[in-house]
Amino acid sequence: MIKTYWWFLLGVFSVACSGEDTPDKRSDNLLYQYSTIDALLGGVFEGDLHMSDLGAQGDFGIGTFNAVDGELFMNEGELYRIRHDGKAYPVAPSETSPFAVATFFQRDTVFEFNAADGPISYEGLQDRLGRLLKANHIYAIRIIGDFAQVRTRAPAPAHRPYPTLLEHLNDHQHTFTLNEVKGTMVGFFVPHFLKNINVDGFHFHLLTADKQAGGHVFGFESRALKIELSRMRNITVELPGTSAFQHVNLTMDRNNDVRIVEQGK
Amino acid sequence: MIKTYWWFLLGVFSVACSGEDTPDKRSDNLLYQYSTIDALLGGVFEGDLHMSDLGAQGDFGIGTFNAVDGELFMNEGELYRIRHDGKAYPVAPSETSPFAVATFFQRDTVFEFNAADGPISYEGLQDRLGRLLKANHIYAIRIIGDFAQVRTRAPAPAHRPYPTLLEHLNDHQHTFTLNEVKGTMVGFFVPHFLKNINVDGFHFHLLTADKQAGGHVFGFESRALKIELSRMRNITVELPGTSAFQHVNLTMDRNNDVRIVEQGK
Repeated sequence: MIKTYWWFLLGVFSVACSGEDTPDKRSDNLLYQYSTIDALLGGVFEGDLHMSDLGAQGDFGIGTFNAVDGELFMNEGELYRIRHDGKAYPVAPSETSPFAVATFFQRDTVFEFNAADGPISYEGLQDRLGRLLKANHIYAIRIIGDFAQVRTRAPAPAHRPYPTLLEHLNDHQHTFTLNEVKGTMVGFFVPHFLKNINVDGFHFHLLTADKQAGGHVFGFESRALKIELSRMRNITVELPGTSAFQHVNLTMDRNNDVRIVEQGK
Repeated sequence: MIKTYWWFLLGVFSVACSGEDTPDKRSDNLLYQYSTIDALLGGVFEGDLHMSDLGAQGDFGIGTFNAVDGELFMNEGELYRIRHDGKAYPVAPSETSPFAVATFFQRDTVFEFNAADGPISYEGLQDRLGRLLKANHIYAIRIIGDFAQVRTRAPAPAHRPYPTLLEHLNDHQHTFTLNEVKGTMVGFFVPHFLKNINVDGFHFHLLTADKQAGGHVFGFESRALKIELSRMRNITVELPGTSAFQHVNLTMDRNNDVRIVEQGK
């Protein structure tokens, strides 16, 4: 059963909002993930996950491509790559990724913000959702929005020998300010105890409604949002068999907050 | 293909030992896990995982039971509970667990130590295996041994309100010294980056060959060992829907080294 709420009517959050239905089967609501965020942060920029493999694991997701050449966006089974020129490109099944996350999106809760609610920032949305979601669970989140502005980024491809991800982003990410756009954000809320595995907290990638632009989301101001949640019951992590994954040092505690790296060229 | 090595012939480890075959399918070599070690450490001692559910996820594994009433041992589909009286009991499908790990064990590498190799301690085995295994991968490990001595423990059941696991073990674990026994140890090697999810490093539970005794393994001296390895390609973590799991604070970094708590009553 899908529950729909209109915040302009409710005014405040209700604990009843979080009463999603329990999946019937333990295999439902499975989040699939290839590699770990710590391996990507450590410079494991090549993997053997083909887009055809990822598509078998879900119709909704985010990630990157080998050599961190762009941001991966998947919604309703359609895959796009947003490159450092800011443009979105269709993705071929043979393209490969060192880090990606996917699920078959089954919304269990829906919220809407309308114009009457006033503008909503990314920070404001995170604050509201953060109070609503169960802190120890994973959520897939789709946001369909009308935005006054969205700030995004996409990295240029890296070259061997690969640096760490934050080193690469500091020098080679391109940032974009998209004004007056409609679009869809796909992403996740991941609890803190998975911080070595995935980006903890909220993490979204955008594709504009005209499918021409997007990127990793740094911030936005929106006029209207429709937010669909899918609580994940299981997470599967595939550990790459590649030499790069086997040899990266994953014993250190990294700063994985790739969301706050807003500066850059 | 299964590879067998006789260490008394080889003398030293060979890098060739680690060249297991790659699984054919991405769904192969899946480690299933219910809840997280941090939740168990934090006092989430009740779950809704029935043994019949666990059996559907594997024929080999370890864990505990609700109220941490004993140590769970599963090998070749047979489940036992080693209680704080030191005795092993068969397990009914309806019994429940707050934390358990299982896989369908498919050995890909086999080692043997014979009497000619001299006695082998748990520390010595960990040291040798630690140099052999890929540090960023998960291994299921079965050890069939002839032991001069094995030191084990099993906790007494806890009572509500539940303490943390280490608090409970400090006061309510029972330790056992088993002399001149044969038995099977089942367990895992888990890489450091999963330390909030599972016990990192080596972790074994024992059942004696007569199926009368066992427990969580603290140490051993063995005469002969057969060691079977199964490298895991994927780990699936099921996040319990229980209120206890939803509300435990999983944002702190816990000391999860339950292996070194050897003192106790």
